[in-house]
Amino acid sequence: MLLEEIGQANDIKKIKKEDLNLLAQEIRDFLIKTISVTGGHLGSNLGVVELTMALHLALNLPEDKIIWDVGHQSYTHKILTGRRCDFDSLRQFHGLSGFPKRKESDCDVFDTGHSSTSISAGVGLVKAREIMGGKNTVVSVIGDGSLTGGMAYEALNNAAKLGSNFIIILNDNNMSISENVGGVSKYLNNIRTATGYLDLKKGIYNALLGTRRGDSAINKIRKAKSSFKQLVIPGMLFEDMGITYLGPVDGHDIGDMVSVISDAKRVEGPVLIHVLTQKGKGYQPAERHPARFHGAEPFDIDTGIPSHPRTVANYTDIFSTVMCKLGQRDEKIVAITAAMPDGTGLKRFRNMYPERFFDVGIAEEHAVTFAAGLAVGGLKPIVAVYSSFLQRAYDQILHDVCIQNLPVVFAIDRAGLVGSDGETHQGIFDFTYLTGIPNMHVCAPKNKWELSDMMKFAVGLGAPIAVRYPRGTAYEGLKEYREPVELGRAEWIYREREIALFAVGSMVKTAEYVRDILKGKGHFVSLVNARFVKPIDEEAVKTACERHKLIVTMEENVACGGYGEKVLDYMNREGLRKSCLNICIPDAYVEHGNVELLKREIGIDAESIAKRIEVVLEEMESK
Amino acid sequence: MLLEEIGQANDIKKIKKEDLNLLAQEIRDFLIKTISVTGGHLGSNLGVVELTMALHLALNLPEDKIIWDVGHQSYTHKILTGRRCDFDSLRQFHGLSGFPKRKESDCDVFDTGHSSTSISAGVGLVKAREIMGGKNTVVSVIGDGSLTGGMAYEALNNAAKLGSNFIIILNDNNMSISENVGGVSKYLNNIRTATGYLDLKKGIYNALLGTRRGDSAINKIRKAKSSFKQLVIPGMLFEDMGITYLGPVDGHDIGDMVSVISDAKRVEGPVLIHVLTQKGKGYQPAERHPARFHGAEPFDIDTGIPSHPRTVANYTDIFSTVMCKLGQRDEKIVAITAAMPDGTGLKRFRNMYPERFFDVGIAEEHAVTFAAGLAVGGLKPIVAVYSSFLQRAYDQILHDVCIQNLPVVFAIDRAGLVGSDGETHQGIFDFTYLTGIPNMHVCAPKNKWELSDMMKFAVGLGAPIAVRYPRGTAYEGLKEYREPVELGRAEWIYREREIALFAVGSMVKTAEYVRDILKGKGHFVSLVNARFVKPIDEEAVKTACERHKLIVTMEENVACGGYGEKVLDYMNREGLRKSCLNICIPDAYVEHGNVELLKREIGIDAESIAKRIEVVLEEMESK
Repeated sequence: MLLEEIGQANDIKKIKKEDLNLLAQEIRDFLIKTISVTGGHLGSNLGVVELTMALHLALNLPEDKIIWDVGHQSYTHKILTGRRCDFDSLRQFHGLSGFPKRKESDCDVFDTGHSSTSISAGVGLVKAREIMGGKNTVVSVIGDGSLTGGMAYEALNNAAKLGSNFIIILNDNNMSISENVGGVSKYLNNIRTATGYLDLKKGIYNALLGTRRGDSAINKIRKAKSSFKQLVIPGMLFEDMGITYLGPVDGHDIGDMVSVISDAKRVEGPVLIHVLTQKGKGYQPAERHPARFHGAEPFDIDTGIPSHPRTVANYTDIFSTVMCKLGQRDEKIVAITAAMPDGTGLKRFRNMYPERFFDVGIAEEHAVTFAAGLAVGGLKPIVAVYSSFLQRAYDQILHDVCIQNLPVVFAIDRAGLVGSDGETHQGIFDFTYLTGIPNMHVCAPKNKWELSDMMKFAVGLGAPIAVRYPRGTAYEGLKEYREPVELGRAEWIYREREIALFAVGSMVKTAEYVRDILKGKGHFVSLVNARFVKPIDEEAVKTACERHKLIVTMEENVACGGYGEKVLDYMNREGLRKSCLNICIPDAYVEHGNVELLKREIGIDAESIAKRIEVVLEEMESK
Repeated sequence: MLLEEIGQANDIKKIKKEDLNLLAQEIRDFLIKTISVTGGHLGSNLGVVELTMALHLALNLPEDKIIWDVGHQSYTHKILTGRRCDFDSLRQFHGLSGFPKRKESDCDVFDTGHSSTSISAGVGLVKAREIMGGKNTVVSVIGDGSLTGGMAYEALNNAAKLGSNFIIILNDNNMSISENVGGVSKYLNNIRTATGYLDLKKGIYNALLGTRRGDSAINKIRKAKSSFKQLVIPGMLFEDMGITYLGPVDGHDIGDMVSVISDAKRVEGPVLIHVLTQKGKGYQPAERHPARFHGAEPFDIDTGIPSHPRTVANYTDIFSTVMCKLGQRDEKIVAITAAMPDGTGLKRFRNMYPERFFDVGIAEEHAVTFAAGLAVGGLKPIVAVYSSFLQRAYDQILHDVCIQNLPVVFAIDRAGLVGSDGETHQGIFDFTYLTGIPNMHVCAPKNKWELSDMMKFAVGLGAPIAVRYPRGTAYEGLKEYREPVELGRAEWIYREREIALFAVGSMVKTAEYVRDILKGKGHFVSLVNARFVKPIDEEAVKTACERHKLIVTMEENVACGGYGEKVLDYMNREGLRKSCLNICIPDAYVEHGNVELLKREIGIDAESIAKRIEVVLEEMESK
């Protein structure tokens, strides 16, 4: 097997040229086999096998730097840098990350996870190289989808000013490219493939003048570039345009790509290589169903069917259903997603009410301010975004929605620990960044019915509100507890004495187990479903303080600005001197792995919490 | 005076056509006279007098909607909508805001303040109109500078899909436009002025075919547009390009603009009008010194010289000086600003070390991730951004800097209350959003010397750290207290008993007054300069709890996630049951006005704080 000859970076260069396609096939087989067992991002990785190989052939790692935008397409890169044997632990606790990690390899240059960051990071590395006097090559690999994110444009605008080499690879998997490219484009394509690359500023004139069609080409290209500036956004984006364009190149032809990348290294300044790839390439089920194989659960290789089909609904399904109901009931309901119609569950709403559904691309900032505009215009917008991605729109929530106190509902999926995607995707900061904002309201449901109830409550509130729910299976316990949702009102599940558990959202389920454990040890335990993190139910806290000796708050958020601190703050203001234990995410990034395992690791699973409570009780006794 | 005939929206339509230029002159005189007394944004407002008049002539307010990007250029709009008489209270407490405010007038459609939001909001209003079946005109007015912000591109990308009318006015005041527009541009200009407007998709073909040069023009335009897609970012930005371009138009010719805007209203789809204006137009000092008259203090009209020249240094000056020293001492120090070389004080650093200074445009997201790239490349980047603008880069700080624990220093100016710019610009959330982030460190200096010391400490830390300081005069008190800055160490200023004041940054000065008042009433008062908000000095809090009956925390930040909650959290964990009073910004937006006045209003001036402390002491007595 050729793969066995790849033990570390640059080993690929020892493979004979005629064997490279065979190696590509072996990598593909390896990826399919591995991911069919571990789960992971299949489609995007199958798409860039040859591109990654070409980069590794044309560059010298770790001296040269490759930055993978988003980063979930870096599996082949990991294989080629000596990490193939770690793939059975892919995305598992203490195992191989599904994203580039500097701590994992010196060939991973920049940790990524969220979209559209790679060009900014690349420009930084290039500038550092210029100042430090280095000579390496810096490459940012960005997909066509990631280019819809505003910060990619900010970065291109700044990349254009660079005076030394910087390579941007546009990995265009044809997911969002217009097919209508027109006359000059075709013409330019011919020139590109003929001459290798174009640079209006340096070299290109000579190159073209040497060809028969050169003269007229020069004029047409020059006209095209400057006319863009004038036509669309005059001068702004590529004000001092100096981005050389190479391509399009067949992203599955290794030889072509190696030669283009080698050409690109010689350009003094920024150069963009347009590479055409196919998502899921080489595995029919993935080619046919790109969305399903984007982030895949373990599957059967022959059929592509998930090995463990879901039998119970997750929160996304519940949200999906309630959105369709809300849409039917009220024609002012509109829904917005940032490139996640599948992931957020809005696909059904889109199919039912296409004119009231908006996918804005990977553009969370625009999504939120657009929603603010919709609200000013009299509609009731619901913005469905994952917790960690909504961080991108913090300023827009604060500045465009909340100052004007607009009725925008934020449906925040993937809140709390998300598991296998790791640090970059954990949704453990949203209470902090949202509840600090005036006029904002924040709530979290304990089970599937409450998610429905809260969504209905939220669209009726007439003010900014976030409903926050976790990834995964929707809790079906506590069905009989379904008090109407009221602003800032908690729900008492069990009223006892001694210990009062105030649990938020997903932690209500955990709190039930904690209560069982403690009851088993002879304690009396009340359980309150907090429901609202802003405003908190002060009355409930006060009542609890009167009848319990220990208050315990439980949340899947960091301490800073979380529910626990709000309870403490209230108790302090009221002079309620009661012992309080705040269970929350520690002040550290949480890596990838099974959620239950992670919870145990950071001490927020039921057993750990029960133990921590007992320790506090003992300390109280001994005082 | 013509101005007196303008009592409300649309009154301008009663003015005779031949008198419009006279009215423009009156508005200009009024603006110069008013702002010379109140201070305010002069240059940008003088630049858009005629543009605003043209909009009011061509539109019907309040049915039609004008969204002013950033919004500080909306003074003429305010004059034309009946708010002229309020201008003597401009930017003063309870007076006229310097920005559009929905609560101020039904002609203010969308509150703005930060850059690059107007197109997103406009797209929202247009979509709402489509769904609700309205017929009004929506106009977003955006400057060329604001177009460097990524969310403007996200919005343009989405605007391009609109099927009904939407007008974007590009107010191009030539501050960042390339002058090199090339051959085809000139050619297109000719066509534009001849035929009124261009639309590749609808109407234009017929229009052009009717002219002699039409045939060749159609081909060239078509080629230009699609070649852009192919050349630069294929298909992405204007994938299904439908933005009609009109212009360039002379932004000081009212008649021309009225006619172009009227044309634009007839386009079914998005249309961009390129308007050329001059910042400071009509007032020579402002024309000559655009930066100085951007946000002007009161000035002498004849000379343009500030009425009350600054005699003492502000924190920005101190930062400016220490940056030059740091730059000299260490060649790895690099500085980044997002379009604020003057405001942040980095101009001197730029002049001394141009190769180590980067102005990335209004692009905070890119600024931060670019800095992360520089840090990975071995440099020591310092990102200088105002507190409220850094909100834009929350995700980049969390995701690109702090996960990788990179040594990026954030110099956060305008932190705390900023005064006359109001809600959108108050820097009162940074402790919340920054201290929730793992690996981040946050400190704030008590006086000018400590800012220098902290900056030096910060660049040596080797980890993410923010140094946060307020707008305005640098405090020169407590010069003799200059203990070396140590991570997480507070500084004891006065050690007494009874009451311990823990003050952060700017509040140390206030705390001195509080202490004086309380001492005057016979109390014993310790004063601790907190220095670090993350990590807090737990030891100091513990010591204070032992020897005082009341702990008081003081900060210019909201309660949520602030210093006070961190102290409470620690005290709770340690079982330190001491009364604690947290002085902070209430959970509400703080409007514009003099900072001292605002502090009184929200109860965080020295007198109010002293009173609040006395009330708590009395309550404690009575228990």
